[in-house]
Amino acid sequence: MELFEALHTQRAIRRFKPDPVPDELVRRVLDAAIRAPSGGNSQPWVFLVLKDADVKNRVGAFYKQGWDHSGLSSLATDPDPSRARVYSSASYLSERMGEAPVLILVCVRGSGGRVSVTSGSSIYPAVQNLMLAARGLGLGTVLTTVHRHRETEIKELLGIPKDVDTVALVPMGCPAEGARFGPTSRRPLEEVAFRDKWGQAF
Amino acid sequence: MELFEALHTQRAIRRFKPDPVPDELVRRVLDAAIRAPSGGNSQPWVFLVLKDADVKNRVGAFYKQGWDHSGLSSLATDPDPSRARVYSSASYLSERMGEAPVLILVCVRGSGGRVSVTSGSSIYPAVQNLMLAARGLGLGTVLTTVHRHRETEIKELLGIPKDVDTVALVPMGCPAEGARFGPTSRRPLEEVAFRDKWGQAF
Repeated sequence: MELFEALHTQRAIRRFKPDPVPDELVRRVLDAAIRAPSGGNSQPWVFLVLKDADVKNRVGAFYKQGWDHSGLSSLATDPDPSRARVYSSASYLSERMGEAPVLILVCVRGSGGRVSVTSGSSIYPAVQNLMLAARGLGLGTVLTTVHRHRETEIKELLGIPKDVDTVALVPMGCPAEGARFGPTSRRPLEEVAFRDKWGQAF
Repeated sequence: MELFEALHTQRAIRRFKPDPVPDELVRRVLDAAIRAPSGGNSQPWVFLVLKDADVKNRVGAFYKQGWDHSGLSSLATDPDPSRARVYSSASYLSERMGEAPVLILVCVRGSGGRVSVTSGSSIYPAVQNLMLAARGLGLGTVLTTVHRHRETEIKELLGIPKDVDTVALVPMGCPAEGARFGPTSRRPLEEVAFRDKWGQAF
């Protein structure tokens, strides 16, 4: 697939066919993820690939608890229809996270105590590579983070060391009937790009 | 360019030809950036494109101060040769940031006071799209964050509102003679991918 087609048609996929995803495809996706840049080329990532049904179900149950705890489900009835659609779909996913063919829990080693707005700069580029590579292989994904409301429990379940953070839970699989890739629409560039000074049209 | 070729050959480029980058290419790069996912499709990004020589020089001078303040330049003589190479090259860039044909200051609106390890999850995927699109167009980039040591000064210079964070400064231009794209090498997948439980080989 051509690069710009992948960039412009990546879309959050939250409903999957039950078909298993071969390890070979998971490997290609991860092999793209690790090509991402990271600060000082530190490569702080670990990818925990969950395919065992029992493990996925347990993590899925914690995800559902995290979702309920987040209070985000109330946004499924937001007056803004596009927002309501996103959260309604996310609410659907929260019920079935454990049924996705693959769950990838993205972890970061040694981020330590210092947290800032740039903390994710060495890991989310890799997550984006992962999702773009999946798109290129016809696999759907979505970046989720609400598992963090149950991070302690999930880390204990999976034997994740204390000094490791879990920063994304990405379900992956073939999109279900009706769950389609983009093109995506976005707020226009004119509103989000400035030239040389804040507020000056690009 | 094919998606996986772009993913596997993106590499930090820190030396640029002086040739200007046409607005049309900047636009294509930004148009790819805004296709990235963001939490609840919030699209919190603003891209401040700096092309004016005087503005770039001033921001470049602040970047140099930030670099010096960070203390990272000492790593240019690290015993690990690959690490030394990265920081030596980054040190070179710190002297010439203002000379890059384009600087893109990536901003986030309304991230507010709540900072966590997932704060970057709605912005660094867009930064990665930006850099991959640039790669696809033959333009080099590198993700930098040390400008934050002089964020107050830079925000004042560019008129950036108080409630906006600046999360990356990305120089962009045609790679200089000898500054080449990948393929990149990374720590092998075997060391960073586990199956179903921490420590279990994928």
